[in-house]
Amino acid sequence: MNSLTIRNVRPMGGEATSVILRDGRIAAFGDEVREGEEILDGAGAILIPGLVEAHTHMDKTLLGMGWYRNEVGPRLIDKIDNERMQRRVLGIDPARQSARQAVLAASLGTTHIRTHVDVDTEVGVAGIEGVLETREHYRDMVDIELVAFPQSGMLIRPGTVELMERALQLGAQVVGGLDPAGIDRDPKGHLDVVFGLAEKYGVPVDIHLHEPAELGAFSMELIIERTKALGLQGKVTISHAFCLGMTDQDYVATLIDALAQAQIHILTTAPSSRPAPAVKRLMEAGIVVAAGSDGVRDTWGPYNNPDMLERAVLVGLRNNLRRDDEVALALDTSTYGGARMMGLVDYGLDPGCRADLVLLDGETLAEAVVDRRPRRMVIKSGKVIARDGTALIAAP
Amino acid sequence: MNSLTIRNVRPMGGEATSVILRDGRIAAFGDEVREGEEILDGAGAILIPGLVEAHTHMDKTLLGMGWYRNEVGPRLIDKIDNERMQRRVLGIDPARQSARQAVLAASLGTTHIRTHVDVDTEVGVAGIEGVLETREHYRDMVDIELVAFPQSGMLIRPGTVELMERALQLGAQVVGGLDPAGIDRDPKGHLDVVFGLAEKYGVPVDIHLHEPAELGAFSMELIIERTKALGLQGKVTISHAFCLGMTDQDYVATLIDALAQAQIHILTTAPSSRPAPAVKRLMEAGIVVAAGSDGVRDTWGPYNNPDMLERAVLVGLRNNLRRDDEVALALDTSTYGGARMMGLVDYGLDPGCRADLVLLDGETLAEAVVDRRPRRMVIKSGKVIARDGTALIAAP
Ligand SMILES: [Zn+2]
Ligand SMILES: [Zn+2]
Repeated sequence: MNSLTIRNVRPMGGEATSVILRDGRIAAFGDEVREGEEILDGAGAILIPGLVEAHTHMDKTLLGMGWYRNEVGPRLIDKIDNERMQRRVLGIDPARQSARQAVLAASLGTTHIRTHVDVDTEVGVAGIEGVLETREHYRDMVDIELVAFPQSGMLIRPGTVELMERALQLGAQVVGGLDPAGIDRDPKGHLDVVFGLAEKYGVPVDIHLHEPAELGAFSMELIIERTKALGLQGKVTISHAFCLGMTDQDYVATLIDALAQAQIHILTTAPSSRPAPAVKRLMEAGIVVAAGSDGVRDTWGPYNNPDMLERAVLVGLRNNLRRDDEVALALDTSTYGGARMMGLVDYGLDPGCRADLVLLDGETLAEAVVDRRPRRMVIKSGKVIARDGTALIAAP
Repeated sequence: MNSLTIRNVRPMGGEATSVILRDGRIAAFGDEVREGEEILDGAGAILIPGLVEAHTHMDKTLLGMGWYRNEVGPRLIDKIDNERMQRRVLGIDPARQSARQAVLAASLGTTHIRTHVDVDTEVGVAGIEGVLETREHYRDMVDIELVAFPQSGMLIRPGTVELMERALQLGAQVVGGLDPAGIDRDPKGHLDVVFGLAEKYGVPVDIHLHEPAELGAFSMELIIERTKALGLQGKVTISHAFCLGMTDQDYVATLIDALAQAQIHILTTAPSSRPAPAVKRLMEAGIVVAAGSDGVRDTWGPYNNPDMLERAVLVGLRNNLRRDDEVALALDTSTYGGARMMGLVDYGLDPGCRADLVLLDGETLAEAVVDRRPRRMVIKSGKVIARDGTALIAAP
């Protein structure tokens, strides 16, 4: 039986105790170490469950590929077209690149990742195959969930729907979608395909919705209608949902009520240059709110890195969450919120939960978040996989 | 004659060269080292001029005082009142605290700081005296400029104006102001006092203007009128200027024109939870834009730290500055923008400029900014004062 006891840790910044891990799960808290079991010193670190990266694009990060000089145009379509082109020009290998991000994320305490993987008529399902390789190879380090993501549209690029099906058959666990009005120019058509695939393959849905204000709200209503019609409550995520940051507060209130009723989850990157969902307000309405880094160091932009404590800080700044209890809410989007969104079972710090844990430096939980120091220790399935900010397995 | 040559540095990320420092200034670039001069290896690091922190509050940071549990109310006045109270309860010593921030900032490459220092009927000028002590004690490490700042209002607290005068007599170099409508409830009265002090003591002006939208725009117009009437063009800064982020774009355009004509500078923290000035648009209008951290780890909020590269990242995120040339603009707010705002002479990388320099890790300037790695070397007046993120002088 595999076992490990970590002495002197403070769960969520509370009283110091020991945590006993057996067979990849949390067995108990307190001092009941058995003969011959391995013991590590937590040195008073704060213990939290593994960080959850609930939205990224591991197939197209440029990590480790040298600096990409960004001279891309301002429109969304400029960025999409440029990226498809750079995939060839730069030789962005999805397996290698997703492996690099997986190792970096693990070193930062991320134990679960949902990644959207491009499926289009140029790359086909090569991105899916590459990230599946990484998922398998690094399975003891981080859990990776794949979303089949039609980045370049589906209806405007014949052949894409068949490739989406192929991606789901190969092992993608979620069906993705993207700006049903903005990209495919056919909100009903796009969403019918997305939800049709969800029904056919019995998978959850996660739709990128950048469409602003009343346009995005209309697409959101179509998503809500389909979620209810197909009984997919609790299985649908809307990523970004910028329209929830629109001016018409009465309309926003109506949408929040409808989202809560349909048990639709909201994913935010806490963007500072765009209208965005109000995290605390959504939580108060009972909506699951998760956080993600989106693309990390890619052709879209240089700033994002996969540190989910930094993301919690950005969520806090964006939503003006200053009090200690509010900083804890910001962190929740990078932990329990992501876990609920992804439907992770046995996630958390209760006995019986999977032993996916992070030890953080800090006097209080809030200090650990804002300081974002190198992670003291990262544990996946009861085993130490990173120490002092460095993963024990090297990236390619 | 003091001299130091640093070999193999890349000014602003360009071609590798040597920089020769003599008597606290940049003497030349290139390989003309003289016999007996000290030589250091820059190892290909990027060379930039010292970072400029153009707006902070060093007298009231809680750095090194243990974690402050924030349970403060949501209104501006809650935060102001709480802070005045905590000054006594926690024993916030302005000399000690400003020294801690000075050393931390210097270790992060900041060579110039403008700090607003509270002046009110409770603390009197004790904050000013404390920060003046730090300015003197750490003068070889960082230049500190003090703004006499009436945080609790002037007209609503009789006696404050006299204390402001005393602060200027003691050595504060700038006269501050604060939300003329919001706090003193008398925009004309407040601004007449602020500009009266500027005229009487021949000092520049820096006014905190959080007032939103049309209210802030009105106060801004009053500031512009007084700037022109007193011939203070180039000597006035408006900090925050949230009203420039208001919805009425025609009004914003009018204000920008007027600010440019009056040569008024804008300071931003790039707040993500509030409307804010559009940095690139202001720059294109010829307005000097500088960046600041505002309060660092204080009773107002936990997130800010004095890393001016992190601030550049936040400016970039807030203003959607993604291309490499735009990242350079974001950095400009933490370097040349701050220097112009503070009227620093001999700032920059030209021969003859003061040798206030930072060596950064990174393949390109943009990478150095987004990565924010520990500063390789910080040089103040030609001398190394920090290496690998650690200052060579300890904080109290
Ligand atoms: Zn995305
Ligand atoms: Zn301030």
